Amino acid sequence: MLTDIEIAQAAKLQPINEIADKIGIKPEELEQYGHYKAKLNLQNRKNDPMKGKLILVTSINPTPAGEGKSTVTVGLGDGLSRLGKNAMIALREPSLGPVMGVKGGATGGGYSQVVPMDDINLHFTGDFHALTSAHNTLAAVIDNHIYQGNALNIDPRRMIWKRVLDINDRALRHTIIGLGSPTSGVPREDGFDITVASELMAILTLSNDLSDLKARIKRIVIGYTYDREPVTVDQLGVAGALTVLLKDAIKPNLVQTLAHTPVVVHGGPFANIAQGTNSVQATRAALQLADYAITEGGFGADLGGEKFLDIKTPILGKTPDTIVIVATIRALKLHGGKPLAELDNEDVAALEAGLANLGKHIQSMQRYNVPVVVAINQFTADTDVEIATVQEYTKQFGVEAVLANVWANGGEGAEDLARAVVASVENTGEFKPLYAPEDELMTKMEKIVTEIYGGKDVELDAKAKTQLKRFQKLGWDKLPVVMAKTQYSLTDNAKQLGAPKDFTIHVREFIPKLGAGFIVAMTGNVLTMPGLPADPAANHIDIDENGTIVGLF
Amino acid sequence: MLTDIEIAQAAKLQPINEIADKIGIKPEELEQYGHYKAKLNLQNRKNDPMKGKLILVTSINPTPAGEGKSTVTVGLGDGLSRLGKNAMIALREPSLGPVMGVKGGATGGGYSQVVPMDDINLHFTGDFHALTSAHNTLAAVIDNHIYQGNALNIDPRRMIWKRVLDINDRALRHTIIGLGSPTSGVPREDGFDITVASELMAILTLSNDLSDLKARIKRIVIGYTYDREPVTVDQLGVAGALTVLLKDAIKPNLVQTLAHTPVVVHGGPFANIAQGTNSVQATRAALQLADYAITEGGFGADLGGEKFLDIKTPILGKTPDTIVIVATIRALKLHGGKPLAELDNEDVAALEAGLANLGKHIQSMQRYNVPVVVAINQFTADTDVEIATVQEYTKQFGVEAVLANVWANGGEGAEDLARAVVASVENTGEFKPLYAPEDELMTKMEKIVTEIYGGKDVELDAKAKTQLKRFQKLGWDKLPVVMAKTQYSLTDNAKQLGAPKDFTIHVREFIPKLGAGFIVAMTGNVLTMPGLPADPAANHIDIDENGTIVGLF
Repeated sequence: MLTDIEIAQAAKLQPINEIADKIGIKPEELEQYGHYKAKLNLQNRKNDPMKGKLILVTSINPTPAGEGKSTVTVGLGDGLSRLGKNAMIALREPSLGPVMGVKGGATGGGYSQVVPMDDINLHFTGDFHALTSAHNTLAAVIDNHIYQGNALNIDPRRMIWKRVLDINDRALRHTIIGLGSPTSGVPREDGFDITVASELMAILTLSNDLSDLKARIKRIVIGYTYDREPVTVDQLGVAGALTVLLKDAIKPNLVQTLAHTPVVVHGGPFANIAQGTNSVQATRAALQLADYAITEGGFGADLGGEKFLDIKTPILGKTPDTIVIVATIRALKLHGGKPLAELDNEDVAALEAGLANLGKHIQSMQRYNVPVVVAINQFTADTDVEIATVQEYTKQFGVEAVLANVWANGGEGAEDLARAVVASVENTGEFKPLYAPEDELMTKMEKIVTEIYGGKDVELDAKAKTQLKRFQKLGWDKLPVVMAKTQYSLTDNAKQLGAPKDFTIHVREFIPKLGAGFIVAMTGNVLTMPGLPADPAANHIDIDENGTIVGLF
Repeated sequence: MLTDIEIAQAAKLQPINEIADKIGIKPEELEQYGHYKAKLNLQNRKNDPMKGKLILVTSINPTPAGEGKSTVTVGLGDGLSRLGKNAMIALREPSLGPVMGVKGGATGGGYSQVVPMDDINLHFTGDFHALTSAHNTLAAVIDNHIYQGNALNIDPRRMIWKRVLDINDRALRHTIIGLGSPTSGVPREDGFDITVASELMAILTLSNDLSDLKARIKRIVIGYTYDREPVTVDQLGVAGALTVLLKDAIKPNLVQTLAHTPVVVHGGPFANIAQGTNSVQATRAALQLADYAITEGGFGADLGGEKFLDIKTPILGKTPDTIVIVATIRALKLHGGKPLAELDNEDVAALEAGLANLGKHIQSMQRYNVPVVVAINQFTADTDVEIATVQEYTKQFGVEAVLANVWANGGEGAEDLARAVVASVENTGEFKPLYAPEDELMTKMEKIVTEIYGGKDVELDAKAKTQLKRFQKLGWDKLPVVMAKTQYSLTDNAKQLGAPKDFTIHVREFIPKLGAGFIVAMTGNVLTMPGLPADPAANHIDIDENGTIVGLF
């Protein structure tokens, strides 16, 4: 069996200018990065109508068994193309942290891949590096301000702005900086997040254009003064320089699938610690340029799904016409208590027990009054009885569960799914938001926990309580909330699989992101800087003298 | 008067594929990054003959008055083009640290600029970000190795490999990492250098090709075991992954001057802390593709000049046919003791006193038996008497001092200089290396200090002495040496201008760079991570809603 990268390397790609031409991009709107990647300059299309149907792909809670959400998304795009539909896919960019760590890249798999997969999974067009650079430039400016006399009276013990790297590096989570000598800064506690957790990443993906980007950067609160007043980037006077560093990163990137379906790949916040969806500009472009725009919300429907619907759609100005929930029979059996090593054996009882996780996500998404389709991402070990069990189960929700064999068969394996989606988008009703903009932060969290997670209530640790009081004084208590929570469970405990009930979500602290325009609630022990495993992917990646890469996945 | 960026923005650039076509680059050898930048895939040209004449541009010790070495280099390239010569320029890439700090970019100035200046001075084609990424991936792998059981027995108190960012950030010079909890790594002292100081930068610029790059990465020594044995990247098993991260960064970049002379811009080690010259591949390409290849060694002839001649030429396999030393009358007056605020006033006495600095550099370069030309980079305040004084002075060395007015007049202002260079390359004799490969490290340093700096001797601090003994045991004591020294003075004290004599150079420690193949000697108080000034350039950089940038210089 060929590996993903071998399949990708064997593919015959179309020159990216031909892909661009096909969707009506003018030569002057295209900036090529090599022969198969390009940035899109869509400044003049901002106000074009969004004619396309919006398909949001999300999933059950992921497990080590793998759901293949990106693979289904890519396959679905190719499937729609095969039906003669004008389809475009809008995805997030992969982070180098997981690529070198354990999860691998984010360009799909098998015969449902976005290419050139190696370039996209490595530096791509440099967007994440630009974000890292801008983020850490701001950090350097802050510490320099303190060192040069601290005219703004910044309290180094009350900083919000940390540093970032696009690397899984647990040793950088908690650091002390400014040591060594009086000429090497002012000592203080600091730490690094992974770049995808940067507020600049959130801002880039939510910004409408360059002016919006700069305005949002100005509003970033980097910390507090000794008098507990917020300090903004505007006060530091470097919003212009940071925007300059992001002038190219803000342009969406165009690539293609193995079947030459156009794909816009842009922005990459993780859904467990940030808003988890690709950029507003990329999704908008797909909706303007195609009849079907397929996009995804990271991790399960409880994370990327909820955030897409509650955070992104109000800015995008368009709600999904159908939500596809991806599930695998293997993962459902794991949710039902079957051990990872035994997932290849038929086990209808475990499957039936695990289906509650799928059921909960169907109900959560239906709550928004958007039609739902379930995609069963087929594996060879799946039995007919197991498949029938899933299909029977979803009927109670009025939802069709469609088999998709996208890894092995690409778009051809997603034709049934594509047909179901085409039928489904005709049933779109009026979108019902989860919460109102004027709801209190606490109310918003309670609605997410009870209506989306299936929990009972929200408990604030002492630090979070104190912060909430302060936010009320500062007028930040009605902002949207981004829940930072484990992706593995509906609860804040990664080990609780299935569909637990009556649980409490514990918020240990809030991270205000005023430029992005939301408050992040840190729950359980979720981390904003991953670590590497004992045997990281980096140990298996290599390249020969002709530049042929092995070990990327 | 227009600013540099205004001049650059007003320029009409040629599409980069036309520039490439002009020098015989085939379409399949060109990877465009937008319309005016490209990477060159020169894999199949490695063994082509280097037909061109090599012109090395260097300078007197720089001062805040500015020498304009890059500007003269660019003007000279355009000047040679105007004489009908087939000329190419090979430069280093700018670092974002100084761009956001105090020095500004590195693309020349006025009408002698490399364009697109904003892109080149910002992220360009991502080479520095790829280096930062690879460097810090290695750092994360090292700390992960220690955390996961430390099978290699690495002593966290004896690390060589630090982390890097392409940012001026003094607060990161000395840090403690791995704090917070047992799951967040093993606490140890650490620190960040600026990316240009990374050994990977040195390696990238010295590598012949991808295989050489990987072989050098394997040889990097990241630290020592508890038994004081060196630990290499090869032992950590990630040389392949790091090479993959640098697969595009190793390809030279093609851009153009305002007058459309082709420019290869690649690699960017500073000359005060690293080897200070652009990549072997870029210089080689210019020598293969053009009749005149003009390149520069960073800062003064004592730093970038010496390193070009002693470190780079043995690998390049080609020595310069002429060395151009750039001087300004303003800077020479400063070297002669005149205050910065009074440099616009004629002062022949101060000039005569300062000329010793120029004289020393002429002698140092003549020591290699390469013909020397002095370029007087003209300023409006320079008087005829002052110019004549310089021209008269250099005669004693048999050297012509040619006036160049490149900022205001571009290549036209460098025609006389170009003519002098064309005449000079006919006089090339046999190159006389400063030291033999088999000389001891200490001998190599003494030769640099006495013959190039004009000093008396080298003194090792206790730490350096201990290291030297260890290097002898490890067989590292005959490697080439890169002196890390202030650029402002021939001594290791930035305040000693002019041409001091009988001084001692103090080496406080060595940094072994086995992948690059040299030992760095840290002298005086030179720093490998700069800081930002009280009013950094970042505060003056801005961009409007149409993407027009101001404040880059």
